[in-house]
Amino acid sequence: MKLADCFPIWDKLTPTEQGQLKNAAVVRNAPKGTLLHNGSADCMGLFVIQQGQLRAFVASPEGKEVTLYRLLEGDICLFSASCMFSSIQFDITISAEKDTRFWLIPTEVYRKLMESSAAVANYTNQIMAARFSEVMWLMEQVMWSSFDRRLAAFLLEECNLDGNTTLRITHEKIASHMGSAREVVSRMLNYFQSEGMVALSRGSIAITDPPRLAQLAD
Amino acid sequence: MKLADCFPIWDKLTPTEQGQLKNAAVVRNAPKGTLLHNGSADCMGLFVIQQGQLRAFVASPEGKEVTLYRLLEGDICLFSASCMFSSIQFDITISAEKDTRFWLIPTEVYRKLMESSAAVANYTNQIMAARFSEVMWLMEQVMWSSFDRRLAAFLLEECNLDGNTTLRITHEKIASHMGSAREVVSRMLNYFQSEGMVALSRGSIAITDPPRLAQLAD
Repeated sequence: MKLADCFPIWDKLTPTEQGQLKNAAVVRNAPKGTLLHNGSADCMGLFVIQQGQLRAFVASPEGKEVTLYRLLEGDICLFSASCMFSSIQFDITISAEKDTRFWLIPTEVYRKLMESSAAVANYTNQIMAARFSEVMWLMEQVMWSSFDRRLAAFLLEECNLDGNTTLRITHEKIASHMGSAREVVSRMLNYFQSEGMVALSRGSIAITDPPRLAQLAD
Repeated sequence: MKLADCFPIWDKLTPTEQGQLKNAAVVRNAPKGTLLHNGSADCMGLFVIQQGQLRAFVASPEGKEVTLYRLLEGDICLFSASCMFSSIQFDITISAEKDTRFWLIPTEVYRKLMESSAAVANYTNQIMAARFSEVMWLMEQVMWSSFDRRLAAFLLEECNLDGNTTLRITHEKIASHMGSAREVVSRMLNYFQSEGMVALSRGSIAITDPPRLAQLAD
């Protein structure tokens, strides 16, 4: 994987700008469990994930954690450089959920590039909007908190009916069972998968953590 | 109020770009209650508020509404042009909470400007980050849902003790009573004020809607 592959706008950069990014990017390794970014306490720079998995989360005053989203291979982490955005007023914590190798692009290098290149600024905006979308989705789940429970309950009930922990059922079919839309079901199943509760494959859903799913359904 | 006043980056634009924005901006009036933007169903353009008040909210499948933030004089509404950001995957509804007069800048004009001007793109990013911050704050309130209740209960209790609906107390003092920080108290009081539950003035807090505050505290 090359740095250029993680920036779909690479071809819109001048050779000088490409060189600035390449020269500034330093490879870092973070063993599983490493705390990489802790709210406004630091502002190292952008992380561009080569391999591994990062988790972005917020913690309550009592230490309860809620996962906001995950960053996988090829993803770019903006909030580890959140001081670039003076209007950001919240603190996100980022930790390595698997052994992770990433490029670190120092904040100042990226900030300067963003100030001079509209392409970089607009791409940054798209990344921000994508993260915003993930948080909005999560918030709607938390606020209306019904569909995740209903889907968890549905999956467990189907398993009981089948006497099997792997269901052969399409997302479309689940949606029609639940009076919902396929996209809504697929998105929630992907979320369940990212939380390790199910494993999805073509035409089937394996329940990998029944107790957690039961807890959610309850 | 001039359009230029709403864009702190106005001086970074070329005269041509300034002209494009000015020529494209059309003044619109929305009486209180007007639905101005309904999720992905439309994408009129940016709203720049001259006077009045807009409310951005999301609605549950059952029609329950939650206010995300408000837009006041001088504020810019990006989500009425959300189709500019292909990575936005959520729907926000925007309605006029007071009689509102605003400039409408058509999506295509702004998109082109944002693509060519790094200053516009970066300013747009700051607006996005500010809205993101408001939503994150709200989400943390919803998730941890304790401080708003505790503060509401505290205010009502103080009123009962005083036999008065106006409290003479500083935010600092409330914070020390509640084992919190002044900033946290001030932010929540501002939120209570925006919801019409209290009216803040120097050194005092008037409870303007005791039943709602009691409902929150309960």
